[in-house]
Amino acid sequence: MDMKEPTWKTSITKVEPNKLLLRGYRLDELMGAVTFSQGIFLAIRGNLPTEKESKILDAILVSSIDHGVTPPSCLAARTIASTGAPLSAAVAGAILAISKHHGGAIEDTMTLFQQAVSRSKTLKEPPEEAAFAIIEEYRDAGKRLPGYGHRLHTKDPRSERLFQMAYELGIAGEHVKMAESMEAGIGKTMGKQLPLNVDGAIAALLCEMGFPSELGNAFFMMARVAGVIAHVFEEQTTMRPMRHINPKEHVYDGVPERTLS
Amino acid sequence: MDMKEPTWKTSITKVEPNKLLLRGYRLDELMGAVTFSQGIFLAIRGNLPTEKESKILDAILVSSIDHGVTPPSCLAARTIASTGAPLSAAVAGAILAISKHHGGAIEDTMTLFQQAVSRSKTLKEPPEEAAFAIIEEYRDAGKRLPGYGHRLHTKDPRSERLFQMAYELGIAGEHVKMAESMEAGIGKTMGKQLPLNVDGAIAALLCEMGFPSELGNAFFMMARVAGVIAHVFEEQTTMRPMRHINPKEHVYDGVPERTLS
Amino acid sequence: MDMKEPTWKTSITKVEPNKLLLRGYRLDELMGAVTFSQGIFLAIRGNLPTEKESKILDAILVSSIDHGVTPPSCLAARTIASTGAPLSAAVAGAILAISKHHGGAIEDTMTLFQQAVSRSKTLKEPPEEAAFAIIEEYRDAGKRLPGYGHRLHTKDPRSERLFQMAYELGIAGEHVKMAESMEAGIGKTMGKQLPLNVDGAIAALLCEMGFPSELGNAFFMMARVAGVIAHVFEEQTTMRPMRHINPKEHVYDGVPERTLS
Amino acid sequence: MDMKEPTWKTSITKVEPNKLLLRGYRLDELMGAVTFSQGIFLAIRGNLPTEKESKILDAILVSSIDHGVTPPSCLAARTIASTGAPLSAAVAGAILAISKHHGGAIEDTMTLFQQAVSRSKTLKEPPEEAAFAIIEEYRDAGKRLPGYGHRLHTKDPRSERLFQMAYELGIAGEHVKMAESMEAGIGKTMGKQLPLNVDGAIAALLCEMGFPSELGNAFFMMARVAGVIAHVFEEQTTMRPMRHINPKEHVYDGVPERTLS
Repeated sequence: MDMKEPTWKTSITKVEPNKLLLRGYRLDELMGAVTFSQGIFLAIRGNLPTEKESKILDAILVSSIDHGVTPPSCLAARTIASTGAPLSAAVAGAILAISKHHGGAIEDTMTLFQQAVSRSKTLKEPPEEAAFAIIEEYRDAGKRLPGYGHRLHTKDPRSERLFQMAYELGIAGEHVKMAESMEAGIGKTMGKQLPLNVDGAIAALLCEMGFPSELGNAFFMMARVAGVIAHVFEEQTTMRPMRHINPKEHVYDGVPERTLS
Repeated sequence: MDMKEPTWKTSITKVEPNKLLLRGYRLDELMGAVTFSQGIFLAIRGNLPTEKESKILDAILVSSIDHGVTPPSCLAARTIASTGAPLSAAVAGAILAISKHHGGAIEDTMTLFQQAVSRSKTLKEPPEEAAFAIIEEYRDAGKRLPGYGHRLHTKDPRSERLFQMAYELGIAGEHVKMAESMEAGIGKTMGKQLPLNVDGAIAALLCEMGFPSELGNAFFMMARVAGVIAHVFEEQTTMRPMRHINPKEHVYDGVPERTLS
Repeated sequence: MDMKEPTWKTSITKVEPNKLLLRGYRLDELMGAVTFSQGIFLAIRGNLPTEKESKILDAILVSSIDHGVTPPSCLAARTIASTGAPLSAAVAGAILAISKHHGGAIEDTMTLFQQAVSRSKTLKEPPEEAAFAIIEEYRDAGKRLPGYGHRLHTKDPRSERLFQMAYELGIAGEHVKMAESMEAGIGKTMGKQLPLNVDGAIAALLCEMGFPSELGNAFFMMARVAGVIAHVFEEQTTMRPMRHINPKEHVYDGVPERTLS
Repeated sequence: MDMKEPTWKTSITKVEPNKLLLRGYRLDELMGAVTFSQGIFLAIRGNLPTEKESKILDAILVSSIDHGVTPPSCLAARTIASTGAPLSAAVAGAILAISKHHGGAIEDTMTLFQQAVSRSKTLKEPPEEAAFAIIEEYRDAGKRLPGYGHRLHTKDPRSERLFQMAYELGIAGEHVKMAESMEAGIGKTMGKQLPLNVDGAIAALLCEMGFPSELGNAFFMMARVAGVIAHVFEEQTTMRPMRHINPKEHVYDGVPERTLS
């Protein structure tokens, strides 16, 4: 094993005795000065977000913290937790369930929107035409368009809120426009509405903020860890070990609906 | 398999068509109104944090986002990422490395402080005495006190900042006091300083906010996912697959030190 | 990062160009000469098993390959597989579900039998007395004895077969005797039969072969990987993605019962 | 959540009180009658292997048990183990490192050989021609042929032994022939030898036994779990926690080379 390994480089964090720099900033200066989501943006992108990006990122992360006991990420975590496993094992199991059909649509939809916007620019087509052409391509190839439709929600309140915020903050650009053009195009082509789902809305906004599609699922993952931890704690403190977990037989017995103000 | 399974209960999230309630609040109302760390607190605790708790939680999470390439959570993630594995596999590997000797000290130190505070109250001992008695118990049993000392940092800037904020915000209470009493006691008993490390400071503040010790590692996990994602992205976009990763041979080549203002 | 790391040692495998030695034997000499379970024993213990140990190890591993769709290791794997995740993610999820209440009893029961045999020798008590004393200790402490009882099987055919083989092969020794003494003692103390389960029988035989208790779960893990792979393949080739998996609603539609001869 | 879930089917294992049938056979009848690798074949394929298949499968599994400390599966496991994590966490981490560039070549090479054999039959080309055409396709597309070449072994003793056994047992068929044709074709096209590696040899034999390519990595996974367990045990019993693991600084200090007879 005498192969020479060249020194390797990292540009994320510099650690010296009693001094830690994240992307150049002292961690102890960041603490108290930036929020967690600003710190996340800094770690991943290398610079702090603008105020608008910060708001959108918070909304994206909050939208995905939890969506009940039936998603596979929750069920994998509860199944593992019910064997008496440590929190880390249950959370790791949840993350492994974030894949093609669960959360994975964000990455695929980012690629879809980026390709559609690129086509629109290259061919000098209006977004509606580019959207329509791509919808037809998918239909002819028998492929499902990612980012549209939901098994439960016909009008996802999270997608609507994300786009509403994007318009209010002035960060809705060509990817948001393309997402809307595709929704309209699908309605016309298929003769039924298939609304933009939350994965699709997140995808459009991550594109607007310039994230690469490879990081699409990353935000869903970070958000889900919080919800999963709540479920693992509930499972291990209120349920008997090794129970049969039937996802459909649950009832909600938490606080009734309430509002912020 | 005809065992009758009773309907089971959850109090975290209620999902209906086009409506999702997290701890009673509509997700689309929370989006834009609360930060990610406020959403995390809500999911785990069942209620929104106060302004002060929110600030401390942000500081705790920001303090732990990343601390370089040498921690096992980073190395496990990079090792897995270097095989061409998906992001979820690499992140899951990182979380599995959060265990007894890495991150796990938060849970153990919370238990330590809770027991010490409880002893101080029960026996009506001043905190210094309770701290001293427990330090001696550990020493006599040949056990290492969790939360104190660090292999690299002799004066951890993150612990200092966390306690400074706790005092400024007025949430430093009996657990912070106990943490300080123990630090002083260790100095006297062992004849050398072993300062409170960042795990210990986080532990004290989570105790002040009323979190159970079982959730101690949860906050470290959530924070680390962000840093790990940055490392996995860097590994997969800038390094060749299957390289030998020698943790000590790295150099930092990111932006030079800078300040926020 | 200038800490000096001493060269570290491993005694498992030596790799040179075109030559691989597992515990001293060339891999290409082992191939065709030893079975997989003999190779497993060699890797873990450092020497090849005797013919008798080899037979017992095969029986232990075969006993645990699969036990239906309801165990958490299977459900975690199927839940993850149903999201379109790669095989490795689903298998990792299954392994994470092998913990205190699922598979973990092997390690605990090994410790139990080793302590009981040790007590019997130290105090020069007959095994029945040592067993009885320990049963009472557990009962008084309100603790459950690991390795006895099963939620479904009142007389586990796998435990019976393992002990039958151990007697036929002449490797039943003091740990098998202790396992039987405890079963008898439980019957007398509790007024009802709580038969040795398969975890308990495996534990006794691993003790007879001299494995440390820390490796108890290892054999269950290795065996389960095979069964889990069969389930993941079935899930991904015959079920629709993201289905709700109710463990109780399944029916077996495989080949009818058959015999080997 | 009132969606009706149809009863679902499994054909792997039937569990009744005191009776467990794996693919129709009673587990307690299989125990003592079949080896672990025969049980693995039965679980995955639905029928017991022939004597020849059984021998090849043992050789495949033995070949992959371990290949030193530098593979990512070993390093991920040791990194996680060094944090004091349970065995299951370390083994899960190892499995997550079995991916595109590590073990994953088996699946890709199976697909390659199956396509090449299919082309040879469809176009009625001799295998050498089909092999040559495909090598050129890969070269023109700038893609690397999976299953050939190794960073350390110029003549892998494990590939040679597998093919030698396949010929002796009479199970070398059109996929083995194609593997050899490709090796020859690569030599001619590229002007240098790039020998079939162990992934490639395993791939050819799994094809001969009729396994689907989706299960290619499964056998590598099962074999590696054994080796990884040996490494985790060595790490946790002989090394200090949280050490910096430099893969290149190790030395082998196990038993010297020995032979079976």
